[in-house]
Amino acid sequence: MAHINVPEGVPGIRSLVMFRPETGKHLYDLAQVLLRDESPLTQAERELIAAYVSRLNECVFCSNSHAAAARCLYDGDRGLVDEVLQDMQASSISDKMKSLLHIAGKVQVLGKEVNADDIAAARSQGATDRELHDTVLIAAAFCMFNRYVDGLATLTPQEPEAYAEMGVRMVEKGYVLPQQPIQS
Amino acid sequence: MAHINVPEGVPGIRSLVMFRPETGKHLYDLAQVLLRDESPLTQAERELIAAYVSRLNECVFCSNSHAAAARCLYDGDRGLVDEVLQDMQASSISDKMKSLLHIAGKVQVLGKEVNADDIAAARSQGATDRELHDTVLIAAAFCMFNRYVDGLATLTPQEPEAYAEMGVRMVEKGYVLPQQPIQS
Repeated sequence: MAHINVPEGVPGIRSLVMFRPETGKHLYDLAQVLLRDESPLTQAERELIAAYVSRLNECVFCSNSHAAAARCLYDGDRGLVDEVLQDMQASSISDKMKSLLHIAGKVQVLGKEVNADDIAAARSQGATDRELHDTVLIAAAFCMFNRYVDGLATLTPQEPEAYAEMGVRMVEKGYVLPQQPIQS
Repeated sequence: MAHINVPEGVPGIRSLVMFRPETGKHLYDLAQVLLRDESPLTQAERELIAAYVSRLNECVFCSNSHAAAARCLYDGDRGLVDEVLQDMQASSISDKMKSLLHIAGKVQVLGKEVNADDIAAARSQGATDRELHDTVLIAAAFCMFNRYVDGLATLTPQEPEAYAEMGVRMVEKGYVLPQQPIQS
């Protein structure tokens, strides 16, 4: 049971944005700009950063839902998402994405962990200012989302099918504020 | 020097929202709702939670600027802010605020650290669902802001006067997106 009185049966952040839509609106708008709107990083790459950081933060709801969205978006190569979540450095993802995920992992620990060598390594793989910016802000934002969802003990579905459905919805609809309680 | 090419001479998050106003808008709107708009927690209490979490995250820019704002808002009792930042449990702040700051400190570590006993202790001091919600989301949001500011190595002024000025501006104007580079 959640720590506060949120709508019953609604999982994760959806229950919190229904409890307090005034903050929920800005949280969803931020997720939409970060993960769906224009960026030099693909939507698949951005969802993968979100899932990777959420896994490091041990947030079951966010890591499973964003991994599901990333699998949909890496359509021809769905196994890549699980490779990265199991062992990022040993995975077959590009060296550029490895250097950005390495930075995201440092942001998960603490902002000041990111040093000039990490940035230089990413630039040597072709990373631009915008890619560095978006990587750091996505990683930082999921340090917020993960703590919000787990800090209030929201409902975390256990069945993989629930997350597969969420992933499809997140890809098809984007991050749109729920208007009414939706059973999941 | 910042890790990416942000406007020179502009400190902290202001340089980042000028680099990318599309995300900056939602970040400032979120800060405004969380720290200024209606809440059962006073603006002073909310700025103190922000400063406390930022100090735990070792973010010099955010802890100094939000401590300065909190000092302005705790006008008759400015020393209370420094007491809390030095040793929260030994400070003369109310037991209810101690129980909420304790929860904020757990959120800073990881969301799942917050347990039913922490929530029950805060409720026994009179904390409501909205106060618990706002405490957790402010703490979580500063885990984002702190990492964004430090992860991209933004300009961090060293002089206490710079923060005192920022505190006054944050209290008088709230969180409004900067339109033009402002030397600080």
